[in-house]
Amino acid sequence: MSFTALWESLLPLGRDGGTGGYRRFSWTPADAECRRWFFDNAAERGLRAGADRNGNLWAWWDVTRTGAGAGPASAAPDGAVVTGSHLDSVPDGGAYDGPLGVVTGFAAVDLLRKRGEVPVRPLAVAAFCEEEGARFGVACLGSRLLTGAIEPDRARALTDAGGTTLAAAMAAAGQDPAALGPDDALVGGIAAYVELHIEQGRALAGLDAAVGVADRIWPHARWRLTFTGRPDHAGTTRLADRHDPMLAAAATVLAAREAAAKHGALATVGKVTAEPGAVNAISASVTAWLDARAPDEDVLSAVMGDVLARARAAATEQGVDLGAGQESVTPAVDFDAALRDRLVASLAAAGIRAPVLATGAGHDAGVLAARVPAGMLFVRNPTGVSHSPAEHAEPGDCATGVTALAAVLTDLACR
Amino acid sequence: MSFTALWESLLPLGRDGGTGGYRRFSWTPADAECRRWFFDNAAERGLRAGADRNGNLWAWWDVTRTGAGAGPASAAPDGAVVTGSHLDSVPDGGAYDGPLGVVTGFAAVDLLRKRGEVPVRPLAVAAFCEEEGARFGVACLGSRLLTGAIEPDRARALTDAGGTTLAAAMAAAGQDPAALGPDDALVGGIAAYVELHIEQGRALAGLDAAVGVADRIWPHARWRLTFTGRPDHAGTTRLADRHDPMLAAAATVLAAREAAAKHGALATVGKVTAEPGAVNAISASVTAWLDARAPDEDVLSAVMGDVLARARAAATEQGVDLGAGQESVTPAVDFDAALRDRLVASLAAAGIRAPVLATGAGHDAGVLAARVPAGMLFVRNPTGVSHSPAEHAEPGDCATGVTALAAVLTDLACR
Repeated sequence: MSFTALWESLLPLGRDGGTGGYRRFSWTPADAECRRWFFDNAAERGLRAGADRNGNLWAWWDVTRTGAGAGPASAAPDGAVVTGSHLDSVPDGGAYDGPLGVVTGFAAVDLLRKRGEVPVRPLAVAAFCEEEGARFGVACLGSRLLTGAIEPDRARALTDAGGTTLAAAMAAAGQDPAALGPDDALVGGIAAYVELHIEQGRALAGLDAAVGVADRIWPHARWRLTFTGRPDHAGTTRLADRHDPMLAAAATVLAAREAAAKHGALATVGKVTAEPGAVNAISASVTAWLDARAPDEDVLSAVMGDVLARARAAATEQGVDLGAGQESVTPAVDFDAALRDRLVASLAAAGIRAPVLATGAGHDAGVLAARVPAGMLFVRNPTGVSHSPAEHAEPGDCATGVTALAAVLTDLACR
Repeated sequence: MSFTALWESLLPLGRDGGTGGYRRFSWTPADAECRRWFFDNAAERGLRAGADRNGNLWAWWDVTRTGAGAGPASAAPDGAVVTGSHLDSVPDGGAYDGPLGVVTGFAAVDLLRKRGEVPVRPLAVAAFCEEEGARFGVACLGSRLLTGAIEPDRARALTDAGGTTLAAAMAAAGQDPAALGPDDALVGGIAAYVELHIEQGRALAGLDAAVGVADRIWPHARWRLTFTGRPDHAGTTRLADRHDPMLAAAATVLAAREAAAKHGALATVGKVTAEPGAVNAISASVTAWLDARAPDEDVLSAVMGDVLARARAAATEQGVDLGAGQESVTPAVDFDAALRDRLVASLAAAGIRAPVLATGAGHDAGVLAARVPAGMLFVRNPTGVSHSPAEHAEPGDCATGVTALAAVLTDLACR
């Protein structure tokens, strides 16, 4: 099947008719459709496929082909080479973030076969579960569970916006939540994981390159800042008598941007809630979620130090309380240097110029990097737009991505 | 029944067990309990009670007592004197805003009877529907419908946060939405409307007075400001490439406070929503609702002029679009001067010192003032806190409110 046909077969699944964006949240009917799509494609290619205990999907091209009954799909034969990404989306996300890596994985398998390449090491296409954390709030949940980076009890108790636990959502979808947890046999068999992903910025566009190789994921912190004031009538309470948390939150939103600019980092407030949220009442409390990323941990600390100092000063000025909690912190990830150099060399040998670059976005490859040699390929994003229906990559660049991934997999699995 | 017993019989209805605040939203089960309470109290006093075509409640002490079958409760005998307020609440509202005027109305009837006073003009206690606009978004909806200040078709189509229309909510509660609309026969029979309400600021506390008389409601504007940018990945989009509407909204929140302070007015943002509202995504759009009030229309225009100019500048700076829509504008209301002077004189004759003051809060009395002579009494609020579970009036001040209202009703209806 051509890349285009494969790509177009996935496009309608989980797409919102209104916005054109995707709502592929884990363990929902849209997610089930994506899983079915994955298994159908594995079956068409005679790959041994299944979900592991954490709900991640695997499609194995075994070295000695013995058919679909050869063993559990979650068992990794020693020295395995794995490629893949994820199929879930952020709310109203784009088509490429995640799916491009899975579709390209199947397309690269097709290209290897067309060229008559035969793996001498087992090769798998994988799709990890809840990478975006859009439903249960923890990014890369499937790869974290797989590698033991999150406790299964904590994961089972995670709730979505409607109060449904992960355990209940999995059970309703027919996957046993009691089985959640690290799988050392599976992880231990993987010799290399290479994830292809659309770039989520414009670095490659600026470098005039269709494909790049990642060397580092920036460290990343997420904070919840809750300002608590005094709810009062908006029409009668004198300005001098107010304890309005909205003003302190607004000052902090602006301070975060200033701190990021000062330190050469990124800081974003994308979610704000006000209670009680009445048009004619001063808020009782306002919560702002801050996402901060920087080239290294020292810069990240400097950014957060500035933001928290400004938030405290704004709270004092308005006579409100500040509760600041760090929701998550993800250290920098340096991808395996030997694998990175091998990826660059494979691409160069295939005639593909691939600059090496860092990224601010987290990925399953970053989680897996703690346990196995991992690396990433990026495909150019002409506008840099991501997490949006407008996210886009040119068909020519996607085709180069398939060629690039096939070159990498040939080198890693077939030589 | 004593004021205290009456007051305490209403307290548990529609109270949230967690916050201690009230959630008495119109046409809900909590609202039905409040209506039952009203009818029970009317029945105990032998008052002719019922709901009018707009769902407002009336309990009539007719001049010639002929029992409950004398006529429809929504028919106002000529020259009627009406007191009352409302029973609905804002989300997590206090116990006093609205209910104090209704309870005091029944308590004043009791005091008149205890004193052997007999009305020579018909006298009613009323409770108006959806005064806060907390469920359907239009404040004073019941009195607006009654006086023809809002089109019945527009009212029927109003929706709550769950998408239920007013028409559907009324029908589900057993009230015919087809009957909504102005009732000139009822309004035309009213010679005076006097609403007692807890003060929602600290003016009376500063003047050391238990009770006050209103002379004016400040003009009031409500605007919806929607900033539309470009949704992007928070971890990868360079600051220079962003079109982040959250920053423009935050700057506008701060600008509104500055403009209000500069002009001696009030401006509040109590409700903000961000779409898609993801922690790791730059917002596609952010909407802030602005509530602005000022001593007169010129000042209000000056405040809004400043805020909109700053909002436009912030939008330009961030490369986002601004959609600014005025959701409502309520001109200043000057209460009937003759009635106001008569209220002051009645209170003085009863030995109650009652300063005259303006307010920034809207009330049904302000809507009715367009059609009938209307006035208001305020009861001292020691902290000024309102629209909050902490809203409070001292029992002694509430008792003075009953005495004051009884003096006013005696003068207006019994002499």
